[in-house]
Parts: sequence; structure tokens; C-alpha cells
Amino acid sequence: MTAPATLTEIWRGDILESIHTGHVVISDHKGQILESWGNPDHITYPRSSCKMIQALPLVESGAADAYGLTPEHLALACASHQGAFIHTDRVGKWLSALDLGESDLRCGPQEPNDLPARNALIKTDDSPCQFHNNCSGKHSGFLTWNKHMGHGADYHDPTHPLQIAIKEAFEDTTGETSPGYGIDGCSAPNYATSVAGLARAMGFFAGASENGSAREKAAVRLRQAMALHPDLVAGETRACTELMRATDGKVSIKTGADGVFIAIIPEKKIGVALKISDGATRASECTVAAILVKLGVLDPNHPATKKRLNAPILNWNKVNCGTIKAADSLK
Amino acid sequence: MTAPATLTEIWRGDILESIHTGHVVISDHKGQILESWGNPDHITYPRSSCKMIQALPLVESGAADAYGLTPEHLALACASHQGAFIHTDRVGKWLSALDLGESDLRCGPQEPNDLPARNALIKTDDSPCQFHNNCSGKHSGFLTWNKHMGHGADYHDPTHPLQIAIKEAFEDTTGETSPGYGIDGCSAPNYATSVAGLARAMGFFAGASENGSAREKAAVRLRQAMALHPDLVAGETRACTELMRATDGKVSIKTGADGVFIAIIPEKKIGVALKISDGATRASECTVAAILVKLGVLDPNHPATKKRLNAPILNWNKVNCGTIKAADSLK
Repeated sequence: MTAPATLTEIWRGDILESIHTGHVVISDHKGQILESWGNPDHITYPRSSCKMIQALPLVESGAADAYGLTPEHLALACASHQGAFIHTDRVGKWLSALDLGESDLRCGPQEPNDLPARNALIKTDDSPCQFHNNCSGKHSGFLTWNKHMGHGADYHDPTHPLQIAIKEAFEDTTGETSPGYGIDGCSAPNYATSVAGLARAMGFFAGASENGSAREKAAVRLRQAMALHPDLVAGETRACTELMRATDGKVSIKTGADGVFIAIIPEKKIGVALKISDGATRASECTVAAILVKLGVLDPNHPATKKRLNAPILNWNKVNCGTIKAADSLK
Repeated sequence: MTAPATLTEIWRGDILESIHTGHVVISDHKGQILESWGNPDHITYPRSSCKMIQALPLVESGAADAYGLTPEHLALACASHQGAFIHTDRVGKWLSALDLGESDLRCGPQEPNDLPARNALIKTDDSPCQFHNNCSGKHSGFLTWNKHMGHGADYHDPTHPLQIAIKEAFEDTTGETSPGYGIDGCSAPNYATSVAGLARAMGFFAGASENGSAREKAAVRLRQAMALHPDLVAGETRACTELMRATDGKVSIKTGADGVFIAIIPEKKIGVALKISDGATRASECTVAAILVKLGVLDPNHPATKKRLNAPILNWNKVNCGTIKAADSLK
């Protein structure tokens, strides 16, 4: 077993205050590892980083076209959004068009991370609803598939035909038999894989052709939808949104809870997956930025990059107290 | 160099999702290490976990008595509070009694983590002020010392006589020459030490006698103030407050940013210090709870314990998805 590699360092003054280790794999579109740090075989949950895989059945089944879903809908299906009005309004309209509503969702209510949306709820003594859940777009995609296929209401149950279809897509694109699933924050099953398997799946998305199989065509539409609507995939101030904008649509990236990040780079036909051992977001964001810079698809001097890679640690007085740095091995 | 030890495991379903390593030292009141995990010599910043050390000059100088400070004031001087009304009201009155005000603070404004206080600000379109800063009690203690001693307004400057006095108290109680300082979230200098040094300082606080030196007397008053007012040291829902209540005043504990925790156990005359390598709060809270249980001063079945040690991971639907566990070596 290969130990996790040092990926991110937190410096305060002249002293290394904290350190983050983990596993990174860069894969080509055939599933070959091009470069790795730590242990490529490390098993982890992709969490929300694999939403584009979970959306494959939606597109492949014909459900997306049957209900006229646009790239905006597909971007939301792949999103961990922050419950801003641009997200919740679209989710509400989407479900209405399916003759469904908030109560058909199974993701649970979540306080929005978007500050204007959060503050609007507080000012009116209102409670967050399931539309605000960061996964409500994914679940709207699930409901669209389910409407099209005519299965039972509990689409999040691991034995539901939708989740079985997702498992098939997951194991096909990762190229591995999953060792099992956990229940995610939104109550959907989340299948585990190796970091190499997750990178392999992203390599598949990167290399997929518009002239390829139904799965490849679906992958192209999903990766393009993400790159076209970075604001719908996460939201203002968020890493996914800001870093995708910074790459001018060349890269589709997605975070997952507990320190996961993936990147899909079609122009190079490569995929990236990383897991921070301790689950820290500051480290997953710094590391994915470092990898994208290393691969030449992200400007190290772009403000979105500098906010995460070699980023200043500012205190309550905006005094610069330290730096979030990528480990030397990532340069 | 000794590698960090595994301290906390994050399980989701049957798979280990994330892992936290770090360093723990249990010290007696003479500075002897009783037990340790990881590297006792690991250098780190105590951050807010050393506020009781930073408050020693306040008491030793006679400033606390000259201005009639009560145990409530001393608890606030050691606090990382969450800006609830019980905290900000007391800080406001404290400064008024000194003929000082919010603008004399140097800690910066911070949105309160206390939800009623946060929501009250949002509802009135008001902005947080320096009273809300989690360190405003510490800074009020600094201002009290400064008023008594008659030094310049920038009490947070590392060259200010107050910070020089704090450094002396810090190096005396840790028994080490500090390798340097970093600037903390509140703009005060924060001196680095080894985890063993921090535990040694907490052992000093634990073993200090009411009949001892001026420093010992001050240490007794500060540790007692913390144990007497756990709600002022942090706030409702917070680990410091809930775990101190669960020990029935037998233990004074304090968190520090980036994964630090200390405990002072007078009945055993021992001190504890721990640093999570990656800085995670979930791991520092789980680890300090495990150590307190191991030492026999915290009930493993108390709700405050079960919220952090072997704690369920609940999702947005309140479904139990996993567990935050202490490593076997802590049992």
C-alpha cells in the first residue's frame, strides 16, 4: 500500500501550521494512469464529484430529450449548487414542467450557502426547503428519469431501478466493480471506487465523442453543459464556478464532499481525480488548482487561481497571516 | 522524528472515508509526559487554546482586581465565544466600565456564529462589529491590562509591553523558548511551542495552588472561571461549553483554530494538549472527548460526549450515514 502524498501546506508566519495529504490520479481517456501521487488504488466515495456519472442514465434513456431538458438543466443535474435564486427558481420550474413539486424530492431541506438567499429566508422567518438542497438539481434529473421510465416514487432507494442504472454506469465508466455504497448527504447511494477508477471515469468523459456510443454522446452533453453554465454547477464565490470560468470553458470540474475533486479536460482527453485523506475543502481546492496549472489549462495568475493556490490567509482585520500552498511535488 | 498518529476515523457505510492524524500529550503538573501519541516535539501554534496563558498578565499584574473583574470577565478573557448576546452584552459593559468602547478593540469584526445573534443582525441589515469577534473577551482583558499599566493603544503589536509580558508567561509555563510567532485571526501574536510544551503549560494550570506563587494564584482563578462559566467560554451547541458542563466543572477545556484542543484537570493535576495535523475541528473534538473518557473525567454516554465521540453523521434527512470514531489507540 502506498502512503498518501503531501498535497497542501498551511503556513502561518514561518511555521508550517497544518498539512494535508491525499491521492491524485491523472488518467488518459483509455484509463491509463499518466501520473499519480499517493495511492491510485485508494478506495473512496466520490460523493458529489460523480454527479455527471449519476446523470448519464437521464440522458442515455432519452428522458432528458423527452422532457426538453436544456444544457441549463443538465448543468443543474451535475451541480452542488448553493441554493441561490438562479438555482432554486430553475429547479422549481423544472419540477412544475414535470407536474411534480418540492415534496417529490428526497434530498431534504438545507440552509442555502448563497448569502442573499440565506438572508432572504431569515428576514421573512422562512425555512429552507428541498429546492435549497445543493443536490436538488441532481434529484430533479432523477425525477425526470423516473417520470420517463415510470418507476416508484422512492427513486433514492438503492434497490430502485434508477440507482441500479446509475450503478451500472458508475462501474462501466470507472472500469471497476464497486466495493459498496454509502448513503450520501442527499440520501442517494454513493458508490465507492478507487481514485484511479474515478480518474478513469473522468478520462472517459474527456475522451467521449459526439459520434460515439449513446453513453459517449451523453457524456459530451453533460461535460459541455457544466462548462457552459459554471454558475449553475456551484455558484458565486465557489471554486467550481470560478475555476471553470478561469479556464474559459476548456475544463469541467466538480467538487465532492470530504475532500474530493475531479476535472475533465477534453482538449487533452484526460481526467483527474483527487481525494484529500482528511476531507478538507481548502486542500482539495488548492490541489485541483495546482494540477490544472501543471497541466497548462489554468493561468496561475488568474484571481480565481490565486484565491486557492498560494492563497493568502486573511484574518478578521484582513491582515495577511499565512499561505495555503501546494506541495512542491505538484509543481 | 515521530510520525503523527491516527486519531480520528470517519466511516460512511462500511468504508473508511477520511482519516485524521495528529499529536497528543498528557503531562503532569511538573511537566513530565505521562502518555503521548504522535510526536510530542511537534511544533505548532496553540491558537486560541492558550488564551488562559495570554490572560495571566491580566490577573498577575493586579489589573483584574483593580478594575473589579469577576469570574465572568475572566471566563470571557479565556473565551472563543460565538457572539451571542450573553457575550457581546458583557463585553460592551466591560469596556464601558473602562471608559473604552468598540473602537478601542483591535480584533476586527466577525459575523457571530450564534444563530439568534447572526439572524438579528441580518433582519436589521446591521453589520457585525468587533464585540462579535470570538476574541473580544480576550481583547477586553488586554485593554484592562493596558489601562492599568498605561501603555500605547496598539496592544496587539508584538513589540507592545503587553505582548512581551504574554510571551514571558508563555515561555515560562510551556518551559520552552518559543521558535516564533504567527499573527492570529484576531491580529494578536500567537507564539508557537511543542505539543509537549502546551501540555506542560496545562499541567501547570492543573497543578497550580491557591497558596502558590502569584502566577499559580492567577492560573487557579482563570481555570476556575472557565469551569464556572462554560457558556461564556464558547456558547450553546459548542464543544467547549457542552463538554465542560458534562464534566461538572471538573475540567477546563479550550479549543484553538486549526485543530488544537487543551484540557486542564486539577483533580489529577494533569494537562492535555493535542494538535490535529490537518487542522480539522471534528477530529480535535472527537480526540479530546476520547482522552477525557480515557482519563475517567467524562462519561462516554453523556449526550455531549456522544455528539463528538462515536458520533453519528446525519444527512439533510437526518439519516444516519456514518460515524466519527476515535482511533483504537485512544481507547
